[in-house]
Formats: sequence, C-alpha cells, structure tokens
Amino acid sequence: MLYLLDLAGVFVFALSGALMGVRKRLDVVGMGVLAGMTSLGGGLVRDLILNVRPAAFQSTGYVLVPLAATVIVFFFHPHVARVMPAILVLDAAGLGLFCAVGTQKAMEYGLSPLHAVLCGVLTAVGGGMIRDVLAGEIPTLLYDRQLYAVPALVGSALMAGLHLYGVTGWQATLAAALLAFGLRITAMRRKWRAPLARGLTE
Amino acid sequence: MLYLLDLAGVFVFALSGALMGVRKRLDVVGMGVLAGMTSLGGGLVRDLILNVRPAAFQSTGYVLVPLAATVIVFFFHPHVARVMPAILVLDAAGLGLFCAVGTQKAMEYGLSPLHAVLCGVLTAVGGGMIRDVLAGEIPTLLYDRQLYAVPALVGSALMAGLHLYGVTGWQATLAAALLAFGLRITAMRRKWRAPLARGLTE
Amino acid sequence: MLYLLDLAGVFVFALSGALMGVRKRLDVVGMGVLAGMTSLGGGLVRDLILNVRPAAFQSTGYVLVPLAATVIVFFFHPHVARVMPAILVLDAAGLGLFCAVGTQKAMEYGLSPLHAVLCGVLTAVGGGMIRDVLAGEIPTLLYDRQLYAVPALVGSALMAGLHLYGVTGWQATLAAALLAFGLRITAMRRKWRAPLARGLTE
Repeated sequence: MLYLLDLAGVFVFALSGALMGVRKRLDVVGMGVLAGMTSLGGGLVRDLILNVRPAAFQSTGYVLVPLAATVIVFFFHPHVARVMPAILVLDAAGLGLFCAVGTQKAMEYGLSPLHAVLCGVLTAVGGGMIRDVLAGEIPTLLYDRQLYAVPALVGSALMAGLHLYGVTGWQATLAAALLAFGLRITAMRRKWRAPLARGLTE
Repeated sequence: MLYLLDLAGVFVFALSGALMGVRKRLDVVGMGVLAGMTSLGGGLVRDLILNVRPAAFQSTGYVLVPLAATVIVFFFHPHVARVMPAILVLDAAGLGLFCAVGTQKAMEYGLSPLHAVLCGVLTAVGGGMIRDVLAGEIPTLLYDRQLYAVPALVGSALMAGLHLYGVTGWQATLAAALLAFGLRITAMRRKWRAPLARGLTE
Repeated sequence: MLYLLDLAGVFVFALSGALMGVRKRLDVVGMGVLAGMTSLGGGLVRDLILNVRPAAFQSTGYVLVPLAATVIVFFFHPHVARVMPAILVLDAAGLGLFCAVGTQKAMEYGLSPLHAVLCGVLTAVGGGMIRDVLAGEIPTLLYDRQLYAVPALVGSALMAGLHLYGVTGWQATLAAALLAFGLRITAMRRKWRAPLARGLTE
C-alpha cells in the first residue's frame, strides 16, 4: 500500500520534471533525465547518506513510472500543463509522503531524530533541487519564498516525534504526510512567504 | 587489457574536459577539475550507486591520466582543438567502452538487468553532465538532440542481454562497446536527432 | 579539541554560505541551504567517497552550527559583511584544517597517499563548489585564478607525507593546516595567480 502511494508520488514528481523539460525545449532524452532526477533524486540523496543501495536501483517500478510519465508528457503535454493546478496539489501530497517516508527510513537506519528530520527534508526536496540545477536554474526552493521546505520540515519533525513515542508504521506516516500536505496547501492558498534577511527590501 | 582500454577512455574524456576549460577561459585548476570530473565522474556516480569504494580512488592511473591530459591541453590546446573531429571519434569509443564496463560491473554487484542498463548509461554520460553543470551550462545531453545517451542505452542493453545468456568477459564488452560506438558514429554522420515533445516546432 | 576546531571551520564556511545567500537575495531557506552545503558539503563528498556514513549526519554540532550561522547572518548581515576581510582569514584557516582532517581520515580508511591527498583537497574545496553551483554560478575555484585549491593540495600532501613517516595525530594536522593556511594568506597578499592555458591573453 505504502509502496503504491510512493509510486504515485514518484509519478507526480516525474510529471513536473518532464514538463520542465518541455518548457525548456529539451529533447526527449532531457525530458526523461529531468523526470527521473526529479522523482528519484531525493531518495537517491537519502540512500547515499544512509550508505545503502538506493531504492531506485532495486525496484522495477521506480524506473518504469518516470518512463511512463515522460511518455505521457511527450505526447500530451498541453493537456498535462492545463491541469497544472491539480498537479500542484498532487505535488504537495508527494512532498508530504516523501518527507515522512524519508524520515522513517533514516530512523530505521539508526540516525538520530535531528538527522533523520534533515534526511526526510532532503528526500522531499532533493529531487526538485537537482532538476533545477540540471535545467540551468537556481533551485526554486532557495529564493522563491514559497513555503516548500518548511512544510516538509514540520512533517518530518512530527514523524520523528511520533517515532520517539513509539508510534510508527502507516499511522505515523499518514499523520506526518497529512500535516506536511495541509501546511503546504495552506501556504499556497494564503501566499505565506519565507522571510528575506532582515533589512532587505522586497 | 581492459584496464588499458579503460584508461584510454579516461584520457579522451579528460581531454574534452580540459578543452572546455580552455574555451571557458578557466585557469589551470579549473581545467584540471573539469578534466577529472568529465573522465571520472561517470564511474564515481556508478560506484556511489553500487555502494562500493570508487574505482577512481583505488587506482593510480585514474589520477595520473586526467592530470596528463590537463598538462597536454595546457601547453598544446590549439593543436588538440584542431584534431577535435578525431577526438569525437575517440569520445564515441570511450562512450561505448564505459557503458559496457558500467553495465557489467553493475550486474556483478547484483543489480537487475534493467537497473544495470541504467547504471551503464550513467557511467557513460554522467561525467559529461557533471562537466557541463560545473561549467555553468545545461548538460548538452539534455537539449542538443544528438544521439549520445541512446547509443549508450543500446550498448548497455546488449551487454545486459548477453550477460543473461551467459556471455560475459571481454567478448561481451567488445560487442556492446562496438555496437554503441557504431551507433554513435552513424548518428553523427547521418545527423540523426532526438525528437522534441510532440507539437513543438523546431 | 580537534572537534572544536572543526566546528569553528564549519562555522566560518557556513557564514560565507549564508552571506552569499543574502547577496543573491535568497530567502531564509536558501540562506540555510547554502550555509549547510558550504560548510558540510566537502565532508559529505569525502565520506561518500570513503563509503562511510557522513560525519555531518552523526554529530549534532554539525547541524546546529550552520543553523546558528544562518540565524546570525539573517539578523546581522551588514555587520558580518563588514568584517569580511577577517572572515577571509578565518576561511583560510578552515581551508587548512579541512584539507588536513580530510587527508587523515582518507588514510585511516585505507586510501593510498595519492588518493588521500585528492580526498583532502575535495574536503576543503567541495563545499564551496557546491555552494556556487546551487547559487547558479560557475565555481569560483575554476576561474578566478586565486590560489585556493593549491594551498589545500600542498597541505594535504604534507599531511600524507608526514603520515608515511609515521607522524600522525594533532601535530601532523597542525603542521599541514598551518602550511596550507600560510600559503593561502601569502597568495592573497601577494596576489599570486594560477596560470591560464598557454597563449591565452589575460
């Protein structure tokens, strides 16, 4: 069940990567690379840090799903782009799921709660950062002042906290993912913004 | 024998990295970094994924060869740039060899054929992608529509297929490398191009 | 003692990362990411190469110190920027310490002296390179012709040499760090410059 949800998150992230490829007029190879890195990059970073064989290289689904997303965007990108608002909601769901799963895996492998939270955030936002760097842009995350990393941080922190109190498994994952998702959606609707350094004019 | 061929591939990739350093007017340090990352980056990525100590940090040749390439380009870059067409042929040979070797190593370390193919492609194209990112450019691979990753993909697939039928060792490596090399050369001559997403005008 | 010095190096590198975030008008998340990557990125690269769990994910200090640097720069960046000349001196000290510590750790984990030196240099300069790439710039190291990697290389080489002669521990670290620090400071004062490829006009 969690695996299927995870694949759904990979699919949504891969769509956003392939769409950036279209927007930047990359060819089909570039679309595939961005789809793959956006959807799998965060988990790759997490697994490199945990010093284990990356999950993306152990499961067939993690290869086929980004491939399928690339094919879909290749043929139907105007349609996919038109449902972008819906994709942003799904992306928020993926963000929530990835931060929860990442934190859990990190704690299972013996990281302290503090480091597990960091690892969870990296799982959630790492793929998008790699996508932006490969596309020749400063990672959106660093400047655009939307709350994106912060909801992941809060969700990861809840996950680590629940783990400390002995609550693990899908209940904890669900709670943490929902919290991050809800925060992300609220931040989008209310246009909450991350602050600039003190004294910088907007 | 295979080790010597591999060093030859490293040398060619290092030349291309150092030449990009000259073109971008980097200093000698920048030339060396680009030479090293272009030639060793793909293998580094492969070994990080396989979760083993990188080959580049176990063999003296892998350090000395990029160093030699940097020195040669430093003093003789106009001559080296003049033989660029020949270098493109050698680069295609390096591409073929790297995808074959990468796929084989991945299968030896227990990856499934599908993932081994992906790993082989990353071995072949990863260094060039890192080079372009460090040089402040979108990786050529993503947009320039030449077939570069595709020949590596086909060569890796042959390697994995042969492995499944029990054909390994230098014969398999040679066959896979030649196939990727031949495809790459043919693609260059015939100017085959990777497609843009459907509906994008050229 | 060495741990405290190391944390001091992390702090200085994190200040420089967060300041770049202010200069580029990133938000507080971007400042934190740059602070973290600048200060911990080099060690991360080293530990990925050595195939061990990264030090940054085992010690609380390595998370809290970049966080503190981000908070300080967030509130007091005009003051911090004003003492930039002092920071450059501290940065040189961090450079020296990081190359010495990196080389030592690499030799402890069984790398050859040649590879340990390479690893030491990467420890010292890797974080800054990642910072520049994330900030959308070509790594300063590659083009600006200041001697930055070279002092790290010389310090690492001394460290490896001392290790070969049985001199290890804090005496060796101190000697190597001081040599790299001294060279870096001298290079800054005398404006020593790394050469461009032969024949390129300045």
